[in-house]
Amino acid sequence: MPTLVLIRHGQSAWNLENRFTGWWDVDVTEQGAAEARAAGELMAAKGLDFDLTFTSLQTRAIKTLNLALEAMGRLWLPTEKHWRLNERHYGGLTGLDKAETAARHGDEQVKIWRRSFDVPPPVQEAGSAYDLSSDRRYADIDVPATESLKDTIARVLPYWNGRIAPALREGNRVLISAHGNSLRALVKHLSNIPDDEITGLEIPTGQPIVYELDADLTATDRYYLSER
Amino acid sequence: MPTLVLIRHGQSAWNLENRFTGWWDVDVTEQGAAEARAAGELMAAKGLDFDLTFTSLQTRAIKTLNLALEAMGRLWLPTEKHWRLNERHYGGLTGLDKAETAARHGDEQVKIWRRSFDVPPPVQEAGSAYDLSSDRRYADIDVPATESLKDTIARVLPYWNGRIAPALREGNRVLISAHGNSLRALVKHLSNIPDDEITGLEIPTGQPIVYELDADLTATDRYYLSER
Repeated sequence: MPTLVLIRHGQSAWNLENRFTGWWDVDVTEQGAAEARAAGELMAAKGLDFDLTFTSLQTRAIKTLNLALEAMGRLWLPTEKHWRLNERHYGGLTGLDKAETAARHGDEQVKIWRRSFDVPPPVQEAGSAYDLSSDRRYADIDVPATESLKDTIARVLPYWNGRIAPALREGNRVLISAHGNSLRALVKHLSNIPDDEITGLEIPTGQPIVYELDADLTATDRYYLSER
Repeated sequence: MPTLVLIRHGQSAWNLENRFTGWWDVDVTEQGAAEARAAGELMAAKGLDFDLTFTSLQTRAIKTLNLALEAMGRLWLPTEKHWRLNERHYGGLTGLDKAETAARHGDEQVKIWRRSFDVPPPVQEAGSAYDLSSDRRYADIDVPATESLKDTIARVLPYWNGRIAPALREGNRVLISAHGNSLRALVKHLSNIPDDEITGLEIPTGQPIVYELDADLTATDRYYLSER
């Protein structure tokens, strides 16, 4: 049966500072790096192995993958990096402190931006400090100005359907290192989670999530590797 | 004009211990990691940038690449890893101390194994401590039992001709992180170095070597980036 493991990047500097991050390319902290290594050691200890690995174009997910693979003795595995696995774009909230934002706009408004399914945050203004539209890595795409979770899912799933799912059906064992919301997109799809429930599903950093899938990629089980 | 930069992995644990390494998967030392970061910082400072990166299936070259790319803010670049960029296979000498080997077999014999163009070291016996023929990463190939430099060149060049040279001709700027002898193969090819001279060409660890190439990939200049 196909093997699929999802891992959210280890703690980032802005997870720690409680700032909206989105597409901004924040590094992992020392703790985040340690989480990544521990995830690799856990996967190796549990006998998991992979043929293909996927990640986003963001340093925190790439480094998490590399550190986990190194801990497994599998740094030589092929890795494909794609913007469609990036974190949700937080628009004009990018870089802001979450508590300050709540103080300014009210808890209810921030809760809507963070936890509604289809309401995007305010757009990021062109040329603002965290505008990535002229970043070389996104030269071939239109960088979003903001994204709801629904928008995020809509751009993650074509990569799942077009690249990752076919690789699984061919028998490849797959590890994906990505972000809270790009992984929510995959979990919603694989576990048929309703729109109003997926926004509340927390995906912890650095914890390998194992999917057991049948041959047509229907999920038969989903669990944290640390709990088995 | 196409850009090509070659970098030999930073110091490895067995570079330091003066042991024959070849395909054995030895990690970089702290100094080797520092060399890799410094190489990335130098490339960024000199304004070099890349579209595609290539490396071997060996940890020391992959980590050197990753550390250099991270220092450049380019960890998101695509990387292809291929066994054809691996170090020369040192056969039965793998794992041996170079001084002890010279004491046992004589300086002249060791010099022949290390510095002749087409004399391979003794074959590695199947099942010996450093036999990699059952390593998962080489499941699709026949791991050599030993290689001369000539043998190494013969398996590096098909990957150059089939994959890297076409990418350069398409206008991609290319960084290759590899090993003393797989890089000798490329330098011999690009700089038309005779058989009896290439064996004496030393490629220092962690030093970016820049090739200026014309449109048909003829080398017009080759230099250490640190010297310009």
